[in-house]
Amino acid sequence: MPITGRLIIGYESVATAANFRAVDPTSGAQLEPLFAVAGAGDVDRACRSAAAAFDQYRQIDLAVRATFLDTCAANILKAGDELVERASQETGLPLARIQSERGRAMSQLRLFAEVVRRGYFLGLRHDPALPDRKPLARTDLRLRNIPLGPVAVFGASNFPLAFSAAGGDVAAALAAGCPVVVKGHPAHPGTSELAAMAISNAARECGLPSGTYSHLSGNSNELGRALVAHPAIKAVGFTGSRVGGMALMKIAAERAEPIPVYAEMSSINPVVILPGALRARGDAIASGYVNSLTLGAGQFCTNPGLVLAIDSPELGRFLAASGQALSAVGPGPMLSAGICANYQRGIERIGGYPAVSSVARGASGTGSQAQSALFQVHAPVFLASAAMQEEIFGPSSLVVVCSDAEEIGQVLEALEGQLTATVHLEAEDHAAAAKFLPVLERKVGRIVINGWPTGVEVCHAMVHGGPYPATSDSRSTSVGTLAIERFLRPICYQDMPAELLPPELRDDEAGLLRYPRLVDGEFVAHGSMTRNLK
Amino acid sequence: MPITGRLIIGYESVATAANFRAVDPTSGAQLEPLFAVAGAGDVDRACRSAAAAFDQYRQIDLAVRATFLDTCAANILKAGDELVERASQETGLPLARIQSERGRAMSQLRLFAEVVRRGYFLGLRHDPALPDRKPLARTDLRLRNIPLGPVAVFGASNFPLAFSAAGGDVAAALAAGCPVVVKGHPAHPGTSELAAMAISNAARECGLPSGTYSHLSGNSNELGRALVAHPAIKAVGFTGSRVGGMALMKIAAERAEPIPVYAEMSSINPVVILPGALRARGDAIASGYVNSLTLGAGQFCTNPGLVLAIDSPELGRFLAASGQALSAVGPGPMLSAGICANYQRGIERIGGYPAVSSVARGASGTGSQAQSALFQVHAPVFLASAAMQEEIFGPSSLVVVCSDAEEIGQVLEALEGQLTATVHLEAEDHAAAAKFLPVLERKVGRIVINGWPTGVEVCHAMVHGGPYPATSDSRSTSVGTLAIERFLRPICYQDMPAELLPPELRDDEAGLLRYPRLVDGEFVAHGSMTRNLK
Repeated sequence: MPITGRLIIGYESVATAANFRAVDPTSGAQLEPLFAVAGAGDVDRACRSAAAAFDQYRQIDLAVRATFLDTCAANILKAGDELVERASQETGLPLARIQSERGRAMSQLRLFAEVVRRGYFLGLRHDPALPDRKPLARTDLRLRNIPLGPVAVFGASNFPLAFSAAGGDVAAALAAGCPVVVKGHPAHPGTSELAAMAISNAARECGLPSGTYSHLSGNSNELGRALVAHPAIKAVGFTGSRVGGMALMKIAAERAEPIPVYAEMSSINPVVILPGALRARGDAIASGYVNSLTLGAGQFCTNPGLVLAIDSPELGRFLAASGQALSAVGPGPMLSAGICANYQRGIERIGGYPAVSSVARGASGTGSQAQSALFQVHAPVFLASAAMQEEIFGPSSLVVVCSDAEEIGQVLEALEGQLTATVHLEAEDHAAAAKFLPVLERKVGRIVINGWPTGVEVCHAMVHGGPYPATSDSRSTSVGTLAIERFLRPICYQDMPAELLPPELRDDEAGLLRYPRLVDGEFVAHGSMTRNLK
Repeated sequence: MPITGRLIIGYESVATAANFRAVDPTSGAQLEPLFAVAGAGDVDRACRSAAAAFDQYRQIDLAVRATFLDTCAANILKAGDELVERASQETGLPLARIQSERGRAMSQLRLFAEVVRRGYFLGLRHDPALPDRKPLARTDLRLRNIPLGPVAVFGASNFPLAFSAAGGDVAAALAAGCPVVVKGHPAHPGTSELAAMAISNAARECGLPSGTYSHLSGNSNELGRALVAHPAIKAVGFTGSRVGGMALMKIAAERAEPIPVYAEMSSINPVVILPGALRARGDAIASGYVNSLTLGAGQFCTNPGLVLAIDSPELGRFLAASGQALSAVGPGPMLSAGICANYQRGIERIGGYPAVSSVARGASGTGSQAQSALFQVHAPVFLASAAMQEEIFGPSSLVVVCSDAEEIGQVLEALEGQLTATVHLEAEDHAAAAKFLPVLERKVGRIVINGWPTGVEVCHAMVHGGPYPATSDSRSTSVGTLAIERFLRPICYQDMPAELLPPELRDDEAGLLRYPRLVDGEFVAHGSMTRNLK
C-alpha cells in the first residue's frame, strides 16, 4: 500500500497542506512522501465524525466489536514487510525488534477482542427489587459500564507499532466502545499512516460507522492542543515526556468540560540490590542490569535509571563488572536527532555534578547514536538534589551508594512516583526488603523481584502506571487488559422495562445471566465459568 | 457527650482560636458553643498524622478494618438523641428525617464493612508464570488494588449525617484503607463534631493508629484550600456547589502532584413525561412530582428541577394538577439563611425571563423558609438560553413544553451532564423513549423509569454520579459500594516470593483462593461462592 501523506478522517482520505517528511535517524536522510499537517478544521471534522459515530459504535453487538479488533490485528499483518521496513527506517530500531513489536501490537488487539467477548469489563451489578421491604420498597437497580466517548490518542515515539496509531491506547479505547482520533507521532509518520490504514480498513470491513477511527498527522503542538481542547473528545491517551503530558493535563483541566488525561510520562525505575543478592550473584546482576539499561538504546519507559545498593566490596565488584559490560556496548541509534540531543544534554547535566563520578561509558557513535553511560553518587548527595532524579531518556543510569538499608529506605521515600521498582534479593534479604516494600507500594505501579523492569508483559495482571509524575493518573494502567477501564464509566438503570434495557442487562442467557456479576453485592457466576483451583 | 468546639487531630482534642457558632435556621438563634477555626498549622498536623497512619492502617487485617466500620455505625447510634436533636436544630430538618438519615449513615458504614470482608474490591488478578513459553518465559504477575493515601472529605450541608463527618465519602475512603481528614460543614458544626467523635472513638477502640481520622472545623475557604493543597492528601471527596467544586478541582490540578477530586456538584435532573404516561396517570405523576420536588425543601442533589413534555390538553391538566398540589405546599425551612437567599435569587432570575411564566407558588414563609415555585417555558426559548439550565438549589422546577418527541430529544441533547434522568412512560411510549435513551446514557449517571430521582438507594448497583458538571469525574459514584473504587489504584507484583507477598495475593485459602479473581483473564471462584440463577 503506498504511503499517501494524507489525513484519514473517518473513511475519507484528506489532502491538506503538507510540509514535513520523516527522517531516517541512522543516515539523517529525509524520506518520501511529504506529510499533511492537520489544521483546526481537520481536527474539528475528525472529532465531530467521532462524536457522530459514538452511539452507533458503542451499541453494536460485542461480538462485532471483538471481530473488529481481531480484524485490526489481521490487517496489521497484511501490511506486511512494507510496514516493518518503514518502521525500522523511521525509528532506527532493528527489523527484528520491529517484528517483535508488530507481534505485540497484534496480540494486544486480540487480547482486547477476548476481553470484549468475555464482557467482564461491563462490570454488571444487579440489586433486584424488594417490593415488600419496610419502610420503603426497593426498586430494581442494574449497573453496567459504558464508554466515555471519543478518545484522543497521541502516538508514542518509542513504540511505533505497539503504542502508536494501532497501539495499546487505541486498542483499549476501541475495546471500551470509544471512537478514536489519533495524532500520529511526527517522527514516524509513514509507519503511523500504514498502521492507521489497517485500523480504518478493519472498521470499514466490519461495517462500522465512518468516524470510528481517524488519523491526523502533523508536527505542530497546535494540533495536539486543538485535539485535547475539542468538546467532542472525552478522554486522552498519551505516552511521552513529562513536559508534553503536563501540557495536555493543563489543557484538559481548563476545558469548559474537564476530561481525564492518561499520560504516561517519566520514570527512572529504581532497582534495589540487597547485600545477599550482591554476594550470591553480583556478576549476573551486573550483566542483566547493563543489558536492560542499554536495550533499544535505553529508550524504554521502564529503563532502569537508578540503582540503590549498600557500600561494600561486593558493590565495588558489581560496579566494576557493570562498567566493564557497559564499556563493551556499542553506540545505539536513537529514535530521532532531537531525542539524541536531549540525551546528550542529560548526560552532561548529571555528569556535571562534582559529586557524581563516571563509572563507565559505552562506545561512542556518530549522528543520532547514543553513547551509554553509568554514573555513581553517594546517597546524601542524591538526597540533597531533587534534580538528580529527573529522567534521562536513553541508556544512562546512576548508582546511588547507600551506607545501610535504612538509607536505601530514605532514598526510596524521597523518590517521585515511578512506573516500576525492582528488588534483587535472596532469602536472607527478605527481612530488609519487607521494611521498605510498603514505601515501594506507595511509590510505584509494579514491583519486580529478581528481574528487570524492561519487557512489559501484555496480560491481565500487568500495571504499567504509577503515581505522578510516572503517570497523570495512578488509578490506571496503559498496558494490559485493565487499561480498558480508563475509558469506561458506570451507569445505573432503575426499574427499566426489559424491552428498553441494554441487551447485557436483560434477565436472559444472552444478557445478565451470561456474565459473572454482583447480585446484591455477592459474586454470581455460572458453574460453567467456575474453575476451582483447590 | 458535650460538644467541645475543638478540633480532632488524630486522638488529640485541639483547642484553637474559636470564632463561629452554629445557627438554628428556623429561629435564627445562635447556638453554643463557639467552634474552633483550623489554621494552616492544624491542617498540616492533621495531614501529617494521616500520612503517618497510612501504611499501618492500610495493612491491618481486613477483618479489623471491617470491624472498625461496624464500630463507627454502633458509635453513631450510641451518640443517641443528642446527635439527632443537634442535627435537627442546626439544619432545620425535622427529627424524623434526621433519624432516617442516621439509619442511612449507619447502614452505609455496615455495607462497606461487608464490602471489606468480601474483599472483591481488591480486584485480584493472577497471570501465573509460563516458564516454558517461547520465545520468552512469562514471569508470575499478581495484581491487587491498594488505597491511594490520605483523603480529604468536605462535609455536605444537605446531609448532616449521611454525607458529612461520618458519611458516604468517609465510609468509602476508610473502607478502601485511606486515612481521612474531614473539613466539617460550618452550617452544622456540632453535628459534625459528634459524628466525628463516633468515628474517632471507633478507631481508638479498634486499636488503629492515631491519624486514621481527623476532623477540622472552620468557616473559611482558606481551610479547604490548605487541605486540598497539602502534599499528604491524595484524593478529595466533596458534595456541594459547582463554584465550590470547581475551586477545589483547580487547586488539585495546580498542585506539584495533581490529585483526583470527586466533587458532586450540580444537577437539574430532567424528567421526561411521555404522552402515554400523561394520558394514563397524569394526576398521579403530578402528585409524585410535587412531592419529589418539595421534599426536604427541595434540598436534594437529585431534585427534579426540569420537566419535559409534549404540548397537549393532557399536559395542560398535568400543569394544573401540579400547580394545585404545589400551592398547597407549606413553606420549607432551608438549611441556612445563605442557602435560602441563594434560592430566592434563583427564583427571581428564572421568573424574570419574559418568556418564562409562573405556574404556581407554594405558601410563603418567614426567615429561612423557602416558597416552592413552578415555572413553564417553551422549548425553543429554553434551547436559546444556557443559563436556564443552571441549578436552583431548593423547591423550584421548570416545565419545558416541547412540540414533539424530536424536540424533547433536542432539549436533552442540549443539557449539561446530570446525576439522573427520569422517564415516565407506558408501553406505547417505548418506541419514543428508545430514540432518546442513548442521549440520556451520554448525559447522566442514572436513568429512572416511572419513579422519582430523589431517594437514592445505598446499594451495590447505585450510581450517584454523572458527566461534568454533575460531578467532576464521571468514572465514579459517591453513593453505593462502587464508591470505594474512587480511592484505589492497581499495583502489580512480579515474581514476588510468597513470604513477601501481601496476604491476599498468596496462594492459600486465606489469600488468593478466597476471592473471585481473574486468572489469565478468566473469572475463577470457588463453587461455594457460586450461585446459579438459572
